[in-house]
Amino acid sequence: MERKESIARVLEKAEEFLPGISVDCVIFGFHDHQLKVLLARFKNTELWALPGGYVRIEEDLEDAARRILKARTALRDIYLEQFYAFGQCGRVDSRVQREITAAVGVALSPDAWISRRFVSVGYYALVDFSEVTLAPGDSSDACDWYNLDTMPDLVFDHTFIVKKALETLRLRLDDILVSSNLLPEIFTMRELQSLHETVYGKKLLRANFQRKMLGMGILERMEKKFSGRAHKAPFLYRFGQALESDIFEE
Amino acid sequence: MERKESIARVLEKAEEFLPGISVDCVIFGFHDHQLKVLLARFKNTELWALPGGYVRIEEDLEDAARRILKARTALRDIYLEQFYAFGQCGRVDSRVQREITAAVGVALSPDAWISRRFVSVGYYALVDFSEVTLAPGDSSDACDWYNLDTMPDLVFDHTFIVKKALETLRLRLDDILVSSNLLPEIFTMRELQSLHETVYGKKLLRANFQRKMLGMGILERMEKKFSGRAHKAPFLYRFGQALESDIFEE
Repeated sequence: MERKESIARVLEKAEEFLPGISVDCVIFGFHDHQLKVLLARFKNTELWALPGGYVRIEEDLEDAARRILKARTALRDIYLEQFYAFGQCGRVDSRVQREITAAVGVALSPDAWISRRFVSVGYYALVDFSEVTLAPGDSSDACDWYNLDTMPDLVFDHTFIVKKALETLRLRLDDILVSSNLLPEIFTMRELQSLHETVYGKKLLRANFQRKMLGMGILERMEKKFSGRAHKAPFLYRFGQALESDIFEE
Repeated sequence: MERKESIARVLEKAEEFLPGISVDCVIFGFHDHQLKVLLARFKNTELWALPGGYVRIEEDLEDAARRILKARTALRDIYLEQFYAFGQCGRVDSRVQREITAAVGVALSPDAWISRRFVSVGYYALVDFSEVTLAPGDSSDACDWYNLDTMPDLVFDHTFIVKKALETLRLRLDDILVSSNLLPEIFTMRELQSLHETVYGKKLLRANFQRKMLGMGILERMEKKFSGRAHKAPFLYRFGQALESDIFEE
């Protein structure tokens, strides 16, 4: 699995891959009030895309996503979550696909297995981009973080895939924060709000945000330690045992 | 698309379908404090499964899900939502698959296109089961609603697919209620709680449930109309404009 693969090699080995299924990874990175997305450029082109690839015949879908991400960006040990399978007819533009292979000296035949229709399964993750190191893999010649509102046009339906991933990230942000270590163990309401504001790309109303967060029953307020200035310090919180646990009868 | 299809006919027409992709539908039905799931029995067998099938070569994934559901259960005009792609190796037991085809007189070869590995994309829906009429399609000889805790063993990984769909339904219940007509336009907190209790299969604590619901900012409380008994009537609610709208600054 360590071996890098180029398009040319993949094209010759149809029997090693599942026909019709690909994987695309949407890696969101946040840091210092910024939210970015990780893009890779196809070799010898100006074509930017999500890091993606094909699934081996004896490889679980999830393992494929991890392998592909690592092969194209050097990211590893990232908690990837599946969010949607993109299955519209005509989602892959065959002219663009031919441009990608031509740039590495391969003439793509319409009969080639990768020229057939593909359903792509999207995986996403949220990481602190200041804590990861990127390196382009064998089929990328660059990979980098882009702001969502100034990123380049992407190939195929990848702009739509990013949009759908962002919707999912916003919907599921609280679960992701509870089960990840993106926030320190103990944090202030202001820190939590700042992360939400970064992901939503909007300022939030402090009182309403606090009411919503406390209403969800996922936060546990810590006792303030006694100190001369304690009454001025903000309350500290941590994530409680389980989402919604307090709404169920024992 | 109206034409019914049997396994025998599907087997002969490999070139009409996408290789390696199937669809399974998890239709939850609620009514009168009960939550059920819709299962179909393969012809001449005692094998129960989710209504599922294959995707035509020029058919969007979503259209395939709707066609398959209608073909196997007669359900139509149901709002289906995709929730997960099941892509583990070995998720389909080839012995069970041979049993299904043998029951309709077809010997399934290991080289047949449906004997290869499939990734199945799951779609789910929530309906009021008292309002729909079922009828088995060409490859089912029965379909019916089953309670989740007393349903028969299902083929392949279908029990796991139901479990994952139920998790998603619980996570997304509020969105589903907001964008569907499963509740009347105006409802009481008790009615909303009852629907949550049915889907969660648990009693909820009234005060905490109310606090959580109001904290989400999705409910709009109606003015009470003046009447002699008005002070005794419960408050009435409806779903407000948009989820979370009140936490953003203008």
